[in-house]
Amino acid sequence: MSTSAGFEPLQPATLAKRLGGIASLRERIGADPASWRVREVGDGNLNLVFIVEGPAGSAIIKQALPYLRLIGDSWPLTLRRSYFEYHALTRQAARDPGLVPEVYHFDEAQALIAMQFLSPHIILRHELIKGRQFPGLAGDLGRFVARTVFRGSDLSMDATHRKNDVALFAKNDELCAITENLVFTDPYFEAKANRHTAPQLDALVAELRGDRDLKVGAQRLKHAFICNAETLVHGDLHTGSIMVTATETRIIDPEFAFYGPMGFDIGMLLANFWTAYFSQRGHDSNGRRDAMRAYLLGVIVETWTTFRAEFSHLWRTERSGILYPRSVFEDRGDALGAEQALELVLSGIWTDMLGFAGIEMHRRILGLAHNAEFETIADPDLRARCEAAALKFGRHLVVNRAQIHEFGAVNALAERLDTGAVA
Amino acid sequence: MSTSAGFEPLQPATLAKRLGGIASLRERIGADPASWRVREVGDGNLNLVFIVEGPAGSAIIKQALPYLRLIGDSWPLTLRRSYFEYHALTRQAARDPGLVPEVYHFDEAQALIAMQFLSPHIILRHELIKGRQFPGLAGDLGRFVARTVFRGSDLSMDATHRKNDVALFAKNDELCAITENLVFTDPYFEAKANRHTAPQLDALVAELRGDRDLKVGAQRLKHAFICNAETLVHGDLHTGSIMVTATETRIIDPEFAFYGPMGFDIGMLLANFWTAYFSQRGHDSNGRRDAMRAYLLGVIVETWTTFRAEFSHLWRTERSGILYPRSVFEDRGDALGAEQALELVLSGIWTDMLGFAGIEMHRRILGLAHNAEFETIADPDLRARCEAAALKFGRHLVVNRAQIHEFGAVNALAERLDTGAVA
Repeated sequence: MSTSAGFEPLQPATLAKRLGGIASLRERIGADPASWRVREVGDGNLNLVFIVEGPAGSAIIKQALPYLRLIGDSWPLTLRRSYFEYHALTRQAARDPGLVPEVYHFDEAQALIAMQFLSPHIILRHELIKGRQFPGLAGDLGRFVARTVFRGSDLSMDATHRKNDVALFAKNDELCAITENLVFTDPYFEAKANRHTAPQLDALVAELRGDRDLKVGAQRLKHAFICNAETLVHGDLHTGSIMVTATETRIIDPEFAFYGPMGFDIGMLLANFWTAYFSQRGHDSNGRRDAMRAYLLGVIVETWTTFRAEFSHLWRTERSGILYPRSVFEDRGDALGAEQALELVLSGIWTDMLGFAGIEMHRRILGLAHNAEFETIADPDLRARCEAAALKFGRHLVVNRAQIHEFGAVNALAERLDTGAVA
Repeated sequence: MSTSAGFEPLQPATLAKRLGGIASLRERIGADPASWRVREVGDGNLNLVFIVEGPAGSAIIKQALPYLRLIGDSWPLTLRRSYFEYHALTRQAARDPGLVPEVYHFDEAQALIAMQFLSPHIILRHELIKGRQFPGLAGDLGRFVARTVFRGSDLSMDATHRKNDVALFAKNDELCAITENLVFTDPYFEAKANRHTAPQLDALVAELRGDRDLKVGAQRLKHAFICNAETLVHGDLHTGSIMVTATETRIIDPEFAFYGPMGFDIGMLLANFWTAYFSQRGHDSNGRRDAMRAYLLGVIVETWTTFRAEFSHLWRTERSGILYPRSVFEDRGDALGAEQALELVLSGIWTDMLGFAGIEMHRRILGLAHNAEFETIADPDLRARCEAAALKFGRHLVVNRAQIHEFGAVNALAERLDTGAVA
């Protein structure tokens, strides 16, 4: 469906010449493209990324590459993901203004997006490894997920509009396939691209791949991921897709966006906080991490609590779509009926969230794409101990998610696994 | 999205001239269009329908009209539904060959499909009212639904192919909106287009519209209908969409087709058999209906049993898609894991099926579009008694569906409601 005919990767030396004719960029960066300073900053794994600065300001230029480069290998990957990122960014900006970078320009043929350069924002993942805390983070994220989930669903949208949007994002099949395979499938059998800390984890990995309830649970979650087109999700909302300052939170890189389950983004998000939690013991040579561990478990609770409060607020104030319409409830004097329906919907999101969180934790330890949290623990025995606790915790979430009703017991289990009180 | 520019309704006098140039029709009907005999047979509610016969054979010509005509009113309706019917018919034909009419020709601009004239097949609904039985019916229907449900899902299809198909059918929003409103919403509040047998049912209708658990349950089912894009469903699989002879079963009119829940078609189907069951007492002036009642409850059980057996067979022999892949189960020597996943999927279909059945029974008594089963009962008191039993039964299914595990108790309740043993 995508072709790279006419596509040409940008280079620092030629960027200003190629993009200097675009009025919105001259306005943002500087009227004279000759004054633009360009530096390449991306890791080149999926995309080229340039920072362009000039007398008037700055911009990020992100250009998709027609392949995915990971651990030395490369495989072809559609340039169209830039198109989906652009469409996701504009929708997210409308649904929670200010939380995603502003788009200045989009060129579909060149698969490039020019957008706001976030500075001094830095990627959250590395800060959590360093043990840094961000007081506003959980609130910002809980609200962002609630607003994008609610406002991107038939709870709020016009039904035809949402169906047209489902059709648009259904074409993001190549990136969905990455998630379907790398997240939900490969970790649960001996797929070629998998790796794990060996031999320390060999026995546990074999146990998990032989764990029938876990495998069925993981596949049921994949089933929901693939079929349950409830809302436009970010699709890759890990702590590497979040940029922060001491007071601000921004969400980037939504090229995996598609219509999926309401619980997916928040599940992936919490998984990354639990992963950060289980990795702390590998990084405490730089200081005791008790406060950081408490902070991370607190972030998990506060992110959900904020999500729940904001989603409930929108339910009561913006529910204008065809799902659970006011005509059947409030308009007939049955506001309590709408509250009952809200509990039902939130209960479904909660249960899915726990399951998706478990899967995301597993795939970062068992699959192809690992996390810096664990990868940067140099001692393999120590790394394996952290990873084992996270794997067991993820398994517990996937298999028992329908019976778990609050965070108290969940986070207590995380602590007991982390300290070795249970193994 | 649809335009009727250039669209011209067919007329019996001009049909042969307009379609006589189409080779596939000359071949099926007769080489000389002057020899074609044309008669109009549709009720003109949604479509024009013509039977065309000639020396070589016959065809049905079905042409969509740009409006829906119902109880005197009309509202604009997209001609594009013909496009979706065509695409559904070709997919159903591939998935269960011989069960749907063969398509000879499709003209998108004229919104017409030329297809196999089914003769001597007659519409099932009226035969059930007359008390007639069809021994092969349940088996044919159970297999048809299992095959179309399974082979139209990611259990079997290539993932990109299914996503493209989801995008195509997402444009069938106007017909989906009819179901979303008329089936799932309007019956549960005082919508203008509603009607019911009054005053006999007034109190019960008020009770149901004040029944919080029922309303929340109905809206949860609408949520699944709208968001759960598991497979290509027929979308309107009632006994008026089924044609029969003593030995053959055919399924027609899939213009409501879209990607929806696996349990939808079979739920709507069983609802129509239960409706036929509850209406028998209104038609027994033509003879005692005990045998017919037993037959109908038997059809319900056999349809599900056949569905379950065929779905399970396809699960074990044709599961080549991304859902519950063999790589995680059979290929690792865990066939029992695949059986566990099958039970989980069947359990979800079962529960959804009961709920959708309850909703479909309700809307035919409370909403705009009623069924001949009840409508042809002239005595309003008798009609209301039949309808009340069906309404209560439908409510029981919607509210208790997660706790119902087999047909024994369900059909026993139907009998007790039908005889007045419980009210």
